[in-house]
Amino acid sequence: MNPPARPRPRPGGRTARIREQVLDAVRAELTEHGYDALTVDTVAARAGVHRTTVYRRWRDTGGLIADLFAAAADIDWHPRDTGSLRGDLAVLNAEIQESFTEQPSIAAALVAVSFRSEEAARALQQLWEDRYAQSEIIVERALRRGELPPRTDPRALLIAATAPLYHQLVLLRTPPDPGLPDRAAHTATVAGRAGAFTSPR
Amino acid sequence: MNPPARPRPRPGGRTARIREQVLDAVRAELTEHGYDALTVDTVAARAGVHRTTVYRRWRDTGGLIADLFAAAADIDWHPRDTGSLRGDLAVLNAEIQESFTEQPSIAAALVAVSFRSEEAARALQQLWEDRYAQSEIIVERALRRGELPPRTDPRALLIAATAPLYHQLVLLRTPPDPGLPDRAAHTATVAGRAGAFTSPR
Repeated sequence: MNPPARPRPRPGGRTARIREQVLDAVRAELTEHGYDALTVDTVAARAGVHRTTVYRRWRDTGGLIADLFAAAADIDWHPRDTGSLRGDLAVLNAEIQESFTEQPSIAAALVAVSFRSEEAARALQQLWEDRYAQSEIIVERALRRGELPPRTDPRALLIAATAPLYHQLVLLRTPPDPGLPDRAAHTATVAGRAGAFTSPR
Repeated sequence: MNPPARPRPRPGGRTARIREQVLDAVRAELTEHGYDALTVDTVAARAGVHRTTVYRRWRDTGGLIADLFAAAADIDWHPRDTGSLRGDLAVLNAEIQESFTEQPSIAAALVAVSFRSEEAARALQQLWEDRYAQSEIIVERALRRGELPPRTDPRALLIAATAPLYHQLVLLRTPPDPGLPDRAAHTATVAGRAGAFTSPR
């Protein structure tokens, strides 16, 4: 869910440009009016693209939402290397917090949509899976530096580090706490060093 | 969100009995057909109660949902005392996991509704706040037993212990992992003992 799900401009001429205009319109409609109000016609009008073009290429709102997630998945994202486990996790958490607190928040809109559409739920699940897989390098680097005991499970540590952010921002909906990204990073680091995420055997 | 949001039968005669029938019908409609299909008329029909009775007492679906959360908040819930921090947290996490994996899951339905209605979002926030406040006794008992360093922040520890459950069950929507309640309890206990949740000063 990080960074904000906005693809960089890519080469590709008219087709790519139209896709960008249409997906920008989907994002704007979702964050302003929500999933219920989303129609191919309003998206086409907002994008300044003929509605038959949108129908032909995306078919329906399901197709538009699926392409929105695909565009988010295409972003060439890598976690920052700060030189320490706690630093890397704190930056990761700060990016998550930023993506849910910026106005408008596309991340928050995508989560809301995932409670309305099975297809969106699966796409979001896949996007999160990709981001966690891309983030495992953080734990691998810490293992190489000797910051963590051998056989530390990267995924368990990453979920423990990030879950409090998602819980507070998405489910408890508490006002964003500027200290939380670093505190959650600290907690996961302390727990990791103490062997809380080592797999048995 | 735990235990399952089903109030125990209470004395009170006809009024209480009607409320119970109506809220049971709301739960059944929500878990079977979702928030979109919820109407006062279908609830009244399912409850076997005259629709004017439902309109008079609950006014609209917003009133029904609000009363559903109120009934959940009324449950006289207390966390179990197993004699150890890890044990208490594992039981708490097992209850959370059970509430989201049982079929039908009222907890899952309430979370889904909270993404549809601002009023429901606030009610869920309050319900979670109540449950976390009621759960702080777990940390207080551990502090009295000397299991945790002084100035451990109960709320921060409880959120770290439970967040991975909510993250996996509600957001990542991974298949329920029977080992997760205990593992997340273990992680939070290890982090707590290592001082990860002590407040500064």
